[in-house]
Amino acid sequence: MVKCKAAFRPLPEGGVVFAFDSLHSTAIKERPVDLSFLDTVKFDGQGLIPCVAQDAETGEVLMVAYMNKDSLKDTLEKKLASYWSRSRQKYWVKGESSGNTQEVKEVRFDCDRDCVLIKIKQNGGAACHTGMRSCFYFKATDQGLVEDGVRVFNPEEVYGQ
Amino acid sequence: MVKCKAAFRPLPEGGVVFAFDSLHSTAIKERPVDLSFLDTVKFDGQGLIPCVAQDAETGEVLMVAYMNKDSLKDTLEKKLASYWSRSRQKYWVKGESSGNTQEVKEVRFDCDRDCVLIKIKQNGGAACHTGMRSCFYFKATDQGLVEDGVRVFNPEEVYGQ
Repeated sequence: MVKCKAAFRPLPEGGVVFAFDSLHSTAIKERPVDLSFLDTVKFDGQGLIPCVAQDAETGEVLMVAYMNKDSLKDTLEKKLASYWSRSRQKYWVKGESSGNTQEVKEVRFDCDRDCVLIKIKQNGGAACHTGMRSCFYFKATDQGLVEDGVRVFNPEEVYGQ
Repeated sequence: MVKCKAAFRPLPEGGVVFAFDSLHSTAIKERPVDLSFLDTVKFDGQGLIPCVAQDAETGEVLMVAYMNKDSLKDTLEKKLASYWSRSRQKYWVKGESSGNTQEVKEVRFDCDRDCVLIKIKQNGGAACHTGMRSCFYFKATDQGLVEDGVRVFNPEEVYGQ
């Protein structure tokens, strides 16, 4: 049964507007996302799976991080990227400190189902904790590694000293 | 000292053409690639580093595989992708069976230097051993996983039954 919200909003001149909120009906909100395939995803010995985050618009690879089952489930359900921090050993919603959250537009798995690819909108313009747009800002040349990336923010200003 | 190859090739009518091969001079071939930064790359407990292979032209993420130090070194020096197969526990030049080699156009490392991104030309048009163009052909939808990819070859014809 589809339940729709309706509201009468008073106008300054005393009339009313009938607002019909079918897009946010209870029925649509309650439709479950089928995540039964999560049982076929292969996590490694630490219960993690690597995830490639790619800019949905430009195709730029922004970062690679790891997800445990909870963060993968939340990423799929909430369409907001969350990971497992191996260094801090904790669940981590990307952008919880910096505000640079990742809105998830598409989630893909590879042939072996042991790697995830997410296509995202990177809020704030930077995926890297160093303030660079992409984490992959070290380019290999025949003369060694060179820094080659776009700086978006100063990490000292965002995370503090 | 620059050494250049030169050759006289006879023409059908009896003349000669002077061919000057400066692009493939010995001097250029002998110039060493500086790989001293390899000591700063972080390999995991198994001596491996994950590598994202991305189509250099289209930006499509084609596969994620693992490299050990030897395969990373060879990839950088020979500009042809090689990996470490975790399932077969062996060094593996991509395309050695299928012919679908990967010409390396660019190599990047992330901020932590524990992940590699290579931008490649995928010969044969397919990166996946299943014959799909990209390994990431399982797309997550609210109704579950669906196959969504481009099939380039039949693996039974390429690898045998």
